[in-house]
Amino acid sequence: MNITEQQQQLSDLIEEELAELNLPEAPSLLYDPIRYTLSLQGKRVRPYLTLMGCGLCNGVVKEGLPAALAIELLHNFTLLHDDIMDKAETRRGEPSVYKKWDANAAILSGDAMYAKAFKQLQYYGRSDRYSKKQYNIILDIFLESAEKVCEGQAYDLTFEHQTHVTLDEYLHMIKGKTAALISGALALGGAVAGADEDQIGELRYVGKETGIAFQIQDDLLDVIADPDKFGKRKGGDIIEGKKTYLILLALQRCDEQQKERMLDVLNSGNNTEGDIKEVIKVYESLNVIEDSKKAIEYHYQAAMEHLQCFDTSVFKTELIEFLNRLISREY
Amino acid sequence: MNITEQQQQLSDLIEEELAELNLPEAPSLLYDPIRYTLSLQGKRVRPYLTLMGCGLCNGVVKEGLPAALAIELLHNFTLLHDDIMDKAETRRGEPSVYKKWDANAAILSGDAMYAKAFKQLQYYGRSDRYSKKQYNIILDIFLESAEKVCEGQAYDLTFEHQTHVTLDEYLHMIKGKTAALISGALALGGAVAGADEDQIGELRYVGKETGIAFQIQDDLLDVIADPDKFGKRKGGDIIEGKKTYLILLALQRCDEQQKERMLDVLNSGNNTEGDIKEVIKVYESLNVIEDSKKAIEYHYQAAMEHLQCFDTSVFKTELIEFLNRLISREY
Repeated sequence: MNITEQQQQLSDLIEEELAELNLPEAPSLLYDPIRYTLSLQGKRVRPYLTLMGCGLCNGVVKEGLPAALAIELLHNFTLLHDDIMDKAETRRGEPSVYKKWDANAAILSGDAMYAKAFKQLQYYGRSDRYSKKQYNIILDIFLESAEKVCEGQAYDLTFEHQTHVTLDEYLHMIKGKTAALISGALALGGAVAGADEDQIGELRYVGKETGIAFQIQDDLLDVIADPDKFGKRKGGDIIEGKKTYLILLALQRCDEQQKERMLDVLNSGNNTEGDIKEVIKVYESLNVIEDSKKAIEYHYQAAMEHLQCFDTSVFKTELIEFLNRLISREY
Repeated sequence: MNITEQQQQLSDLIEEELAELNLPEAPSLLYDPIRYTLSLQGKRVRPYLTLMGCGLCNGVVKEGLPAALAIELLHNFTLLHDDIMDKAETRRGEPSVYKKWDANAAILSGDAMYAKAFKQLQYYGRSDRYSKKQYNIILDIFLESAEKVCEGQAYDLTFEHQTHVTLDEYLHMIKGKTAALISGALALGGAVAGADEDQIGELRYVGKETGIAFQIQDDLLDVIADPDKFGKRKGGDIIEGKKTYLILLALQRCDEQQKERMLDVLNSGNNTEGDIKEVIKVYESLNVIEDSKKAIEYHYQAAMEHLQCFDTSVFKTELIEFLNRLISREY
């Protein structure tokens, strides 16, 4: 993903601020995993979106930094806990906290990160530039995002034990699990800039649609990306029997015989490369890959439409380019 | 523990408010464990202390309810996560969420409860009766308590793998793990009442000393309480090899031979009733039980001294009686 100079500058700023969190040394069991997690270079998509949301609403971008950090800390807290639930051994190409330490360390350092996220928002509580009402809006958005992420993850866990999941249920799940933080990130930026309710509402929509497109893209990359670049094994979701957009769409379209075979593969836990190829062939025969691309395009366009109401600015241009790259990424 | 009429009224009020939280039905994997946890009748010590702290500082007691609920939700969130870490199968005499559902449900519903706790505090953000400054103080106290509890739990986990733990280290740990929430509960009540920094500081001290006394009492009850009333097996801490105040005090005082034997018992994981009796005999021979009682009395008195600066009121009388009962409880 190529990035512009401004994005690089803002990313550097975010990294600097994260590095300057001044976490205590002790207890090391609590703070070492947090330091470790933050040192793994993430894409920092969410904090960047907060800064963009702020700029888009004519705010002072740097004022959005505490909110940006809060949303990145919240995101990382969810990753720490998700990795336990998903038994994920790696994160960003390195051992997960769950693997490097243990589940207890991941639970507890996640909890502490959650508190650290809230503490970032206290900047707006302390600064006279923000009214109590504005501070409330900031906290509201943040708390709602935190709740929705938990709900999304709960649905995702529920789906694991649910034979039949509809596409609607799936979309409802990713609106929480993936889109809530992206939506919250943008809206927080707007709230810091003092945007009105309508503008914040539009930012939420941009984030929601982007988040949905982003997740379907992620599901799609599982089967079409270059595994070396994507950092995940080709067809990994199929091997794990995960209920992705592609699989659910295929199950909706296939005949009884195909369905039986697909479910066998999904539930086998012991798939060969041949099995994966077979599923991908079913995807192709049912137009699943093409229609997933169309779904991404649809949600991407919806995000763009909700951006229309904002004044032309360097931030708007930048954000459109960023979303464009995000959605069309190949890994 | 006998309770007064006023305490009963306030406890009823707390239960009512908890029952009226109106948690969503779905996703049930997220909200059923929360409903279940809150339905287990806890002692509700912390929310009661918040209301008392409010009354003590001449506040309107009912105004303290959202803060009281926030601290109870925070406490229950820590219990959900602690039960995973401690592999605790029961809580308040019923199966723990970790046992009844699984670790994932306990992690996730704990996380959601954390957000729900913060949401309670938004009452003070929305009400015009509270200035932004006062709201900040309330949030500061809450966040500090949340952080300190995590730190205390992290020290406790660290001690499990640490051969030598000093009494000072132990006290530092329980100042976080046990005392932070009790201290925060009282201070929150004061903050809601609009108490000044000095008064809030005194409330913090009362809570800290009470919390320490409470924890040493808990450690003591492990060996002196009637197991049927206490709800835990006699010497359970010894069987689990937990580093309690009593054990650390005994290890500090015993000779090399006794020490070797004690450590054998602690690390065995397969103790007989005879082993437990032997350890208790060592406690008695080294004055450990008597001196633990003195330590409880010492911290209790310190708590009382910090209460002196508050005006005489029905709340002060009530709180003194409550702390008295709490510290001298036999189960």
